[in-house]
Amino acid sequence: MRLAPLLLVLAVSIPALAQGQTSIPESALGTAAKLRAQALADDTSWRVTESLTTEIGPRLPGSEADARAVAWAEAKFTELGYDRVWTEPVTFPKWVRNGESARVMGDHAQPLVVTALGGSPGGEVEAEIVRFEDFDALEAAPEGSLDGRIAFIDYRMARTRDGSGYGAAGSTRGRGPSVASSKGAVGFLMRSLGTSHARVANTGITRFAEGVEPIPAAALSLPDADQLGRLLERGPVTVHLALDVGFDGEYTSHNVIGEITGSGGGDEFVVIASHLDSWDLGTGAIDDASGVGITMAAGHLIGQLERRPARSIRVIAFANEEQGLIGARQYAERHADSIGQHLLAAESDFGAGRIYGFNTGAPEHAREATRQIAEALAPLGIEYMPDKGGPGPDIIPMAQAGVTWAWMGQDGSEYFDLHHNASDTLDKVDPEALAQNTAAYVVFAWLAAEAEGDFGSGPAP
Amino acid sequence: MRLAPLLLVLAVSIPALAQGQTSIPESALGTAAKLRAQALADDTSWRVTESLTTEIGPRLPGSEADARAVAWAEAKFTELGYDRVWTEPVTFPKWVRNGESARVMGDHAQPLVVTALGGSPGGEVEAEIVRFEDFDALEAAPEGSLDGRIAFIDYRMARTRDGSGYGAAGSTRGRGPSVASSKGAVGFLMRSLGTSHARVANTGITRFAEGVEPIPAAALSLPDADQLGRLLERGPVTVHLALDVGFDGEYTSHNVIGEITGSGGGDEFVVIASHLDSWDLGTGAIDDASGVGITMAAGHLIGQLERRPARSIRVIAFANEEQGLIGARQYAERHADSIGQHLLAAESDFGAGRIYGFNTGAPEHAREATRQIAEALAPLGIEYMPDKGGPGPDIIPMAQAGVTWAWMGQDGSEYFDLHHNASDTLDKVDPEALAQNTAAYVVFAWLAAEAEGDFGSGPAP
Repeated sequence: MRLAPLLLVLAVSIPALAQGQTSIPESALGTAAKLRAQALADDTSWRVTESLTTEIGPRLPGSEADARAVAWAEAKFTELGYDRVWTEPVTFPKWVRNGESARVMGDHAQPLVVTALGGSPGGEVEAEIVRFEDFDALEAAPEGSLDGRIAFIDYRMARTRDGSGYGAAGSTRGRGPSVASSKGAVGFLMRSLGTSHARVANTGITRFAEGVEPIPAAALSLPDADQLGRLLERGPVTVHLALDVGFDGEYTSHNVIGEITGSGGGDEFVVIASHLDSWDLGTGAIDDASGVGITMAAGHLIGQLERRPARSIRVIAFANEEQGLIGARQYAERHADSIGQHLLAAESDFGAGRIYGFNTGAPEHAREATRQIAEALAPLGIEYMPDKGGPGPDIIPMAQAGVTWAWMGQDGSEYFDLHHNASDTLDKVDPEALAQNTAAYVVFAWLAAEAEGDFGSGPAP
Repeated sequence: MRLAPLLLVLAVSIPALAQGQTSIPESALGTAAKLRAQALADDTSWRVTESLTTEIGPRLPGSEADARAVAWAEAKFTELGYDRVWTEPVTFPKWVRNGESARVMGDHAQPLVVTALGGSPGGEVEAEIVRFEDFDALEAAPEGSLDGRIAFIDYRMARTRDGSGYGAAGSTRGRGPSVASSKGAVGFLMRSLGTSHARVANTGITRFAEGVEPIPAAALSLPDADQLGRLLERGPVTVHLALDVGFDGEYTSHNVIGEITGSGGGDEFVVIASHLDSWDLGTGAIDDASGVGITMAAGHLIGQLERRPARSIRVIAFANEEQGLIGARQYAERHADSIGQHLLAAESDFGAGRIYGFNTGAPEHAREATRQIAEALAPLGIEYMPDKGGPGPDIIPMAQAGVTWAWMGQDGSEYFDLHHNASDTLDKVDPEALAQNTAAYVVFAWLAAEAEGDFGSGPAP
C-alpha cells in the first residue's frame, strides 16, 4: 500500500515501451473526469434502452424481430454519430416457440406454469415425475431408472450480488435434459433458475449430447415447483407436458458494430460489447437492452469529444448470445488474425444494476494502468478488486483466443428476479443506475484507448 | 376516555334485556384470552389453506375443481369436528377460459400479456386502440367515437393499506367494457387493477348492460400497459386480441356450511365467512383459501372447548363470490326468514395480511359489547376503529337484509400484487400473520356468541 504513490510516479515517468510498464497519461485522466460527470447527467443510454425494448420488443434469435433489431442497431449507431457502422453475418439453427402447457393429472388436477427451454424439441408426454434435489442427484440415478418417467430437478438457486448462485446451479439446465434422456426419461422439468416468486417461469438454452434422444424440456415457475413438491408428499404425481417448439432450419442474423475511429488510424481498439438478441418472454430490457444502451452511449460520448482517442472504440452488439454465444464465437473466428489489435474487451451483460467492482485480466506490466483506471472509476462507488472478475459471456471466445478481458461487476442481487422470464421489461431499469454504468464504461473505454503501452492481448499460446 | 372504566362496570352490572345494553360476561372474556393464545400457537389455518390450494388448486366457478372443492370443504369441516355440516345449492351461468392472446401489429409487432375479464365473450378483433386516463374519460367520449376501435383504459391504481386504491378504480373493470361497446368499440383493454410489476395480468368480473353488445375484454399486465403508452407516443397502435372464452350453460355449485352448535340450541348464530371459489390464474391462496383456513380453524378451536358457546358459530364457505357474490346472494334469499337469527357476520376476504382494525355496524345499545370485543383483540395489535369498516363482500347481501356486520381490517398493502393474478399462490401466505388472523376470528366469534343481548340484527326496514 505504501509503495503505491511511488509506483505511480514510476509509471508516469517511464515511457511505455515494449518491456516497460503500460500507463495512462495525465491529460487522458482529466478528460476521463469530464466524461464521467457528463455521462452521469446524460440520458442517452436510457433513450437507447427505451427505444430497443419499445420499438423492437423481444428479439428471439431468428425471429422476425431479430432482423428488425439488426436494422435498428445500424440506424442507432449512425444516429449517435459513430464513424463507421457495419454488420457481420452470424448463422445458426433457428429455434421457435409456438406454445407450451403442462398440467397435473388425476385427483389433484391443475395447470402448471412452465416455459420450454430453448433447444427443446416439441412433443407431448404424460408420465409420473421423479424428483431430484439437484443435477448431481440426477446424474447419480442408475441407467434405465427413469424409463418412461419425467425427471424433475428441484434445485433452489440462491440470491447473490455477484451471480454465483446461478453458477452454483451448474449443469441443471444445460445438461439436465440430456442426462435425463440418457437414463430413459421421456420428459424433463426443472425449478426455474430464478429468485422471483412471481408465477413466471425462466427459459434458457439446453443442449442434448451427441447420440442422446432429445426430450421435451421445460422450467416451472418457483410457486409451481413448490406445488409439485407438496403434491409429491401426498403420493405419485403424473404430469402432462405439451410443447409446441423446436428447431426450424437455419437463419443468418448479424453482429452489429459501431466504431469511434482512433486518431492512430484504428489499427488497435478497445472493445465494449453487449448482445442484441433476447429471449422472447420479456422484452429483454435488463438482458440485454441495457447493455446495448450503456455501451452505445459510452462510445457516443467519446465520439462527441473535441479530439478522437488514440485508439479506436469498437462497440459490438452481438447476435444470438442466448443460444450459445453464437455471434461472439463467429466473431472470434472471423477476427482470429487480428486478435492482437483487440487491446482490452469488456461486456455489459448482467443487467442494469450499479457497478461495484472493477478489474482486468492484464498481465503485470499493465497492472498500473488497470489501477489508474480503477482510480478514475472510484468516484462512481466502484472498488478495485484485483482478485475478482472475468470475461463477460460474449468476451469468452475472444479471451480464449488471447484478448485481455476487463470486468465491471454489476450488482446482480435482483437480476435473477427477471433474467429469462416475462418480467424482464423496461420498468425494471433504473435510469440513475444506468447512467452510473454508462459513466463507468465511458471512463474505462476512454482510458484504455489512451493508454501508453499494451494490456497483454495477443494470440493465445 | 375517563368514563370508560365506569361504563364497563355499568355494562357488566346491568342485565342485557330488551331495552338494555348488550354486554359480554367476564367468564367469556377469560376464555377468549385462552383461545387467543391457543390460536397463535396453532397451525390449523395454515394446514387448511395448504390443503385447499395444493389438493384442489384453482377453483373457477363451474369448473371440475369447483365440485372437488365442495367435497373437500364438507370433508374438512367434518374432519375438524364441526357438529353439523351441510351444503346449499347455488346456480349460475358457467364461464370458461380456454385461451387468450394479444399482439401489437405493424412496425413494432410484439406479443402482449393479457388475461380475459370474467364474463367477456370470446372473439377475435384487430383494431386501433384509443387510450383513456380513466373510466370517467371513457364515459365522456362521444357516442360513436369509438366505432371499430379498441378502447384502452390506462388507470393506475394506488397501493394502500385499506384497499381504497382498488375502490378508487371505480367502474373501470365492471362497467368499462359495456360503456366502450355502447360507444361503438369492438374490443376493450385495461391496465390491470394491480400493483405488481411482474408481467402477469389481473382478471376479474365484468358485466354488460342490458341491450349492449358484449365485446372481447381483457386486462394487460402493468409492463404491457406501460408499453402501449410508449408505443402510442410514437403513433397509432393496432392490436390483435383473440379470446377463446365465454359462457357455456348453467352450473350448480354449493355453499358449504359448518356449525358449532351453541348450548342454547342453535337458534341464533354468529357468522364467520369466506369464499371457496377462486379465479383460475393462481391457486387462490390469498383470495380466498386463507379466509377459508382462518374461519374453519376459528370454529374448530371453539369446538375444542369443554363447553359450547351460548349461541352457534356458523362458518360459511361461499360459492362463486368472484362472479358477483352469487353464493352470498342466494344464501340471503334462502335465509330471508331467519335474518334475525344471524347475530353478527364477518368475512375474511382480503388476503392473509395481519389484522390492524376492528369495528361492527352494531347500533348504540351494542357499542359497549363491540368495545369489549375490541379490548380482547387489542393484544393482537388490533385497534378499535369506531368510524371504519363495513361488511366483507359476501356479507353485503345479508347486511342489506338487516344482518349487522363486523369488520376485521387486514393490511392489504401487498394484496393487489397478487389479487386475481397468477402469483396468488401459497408461498405468499405468512403462517404467523395467518395465525394472528385466526386468533382474531376466534376471539370475535366466541365473544359475540357469548354476548348477553343482541347486536341489532333484524329484517331491514
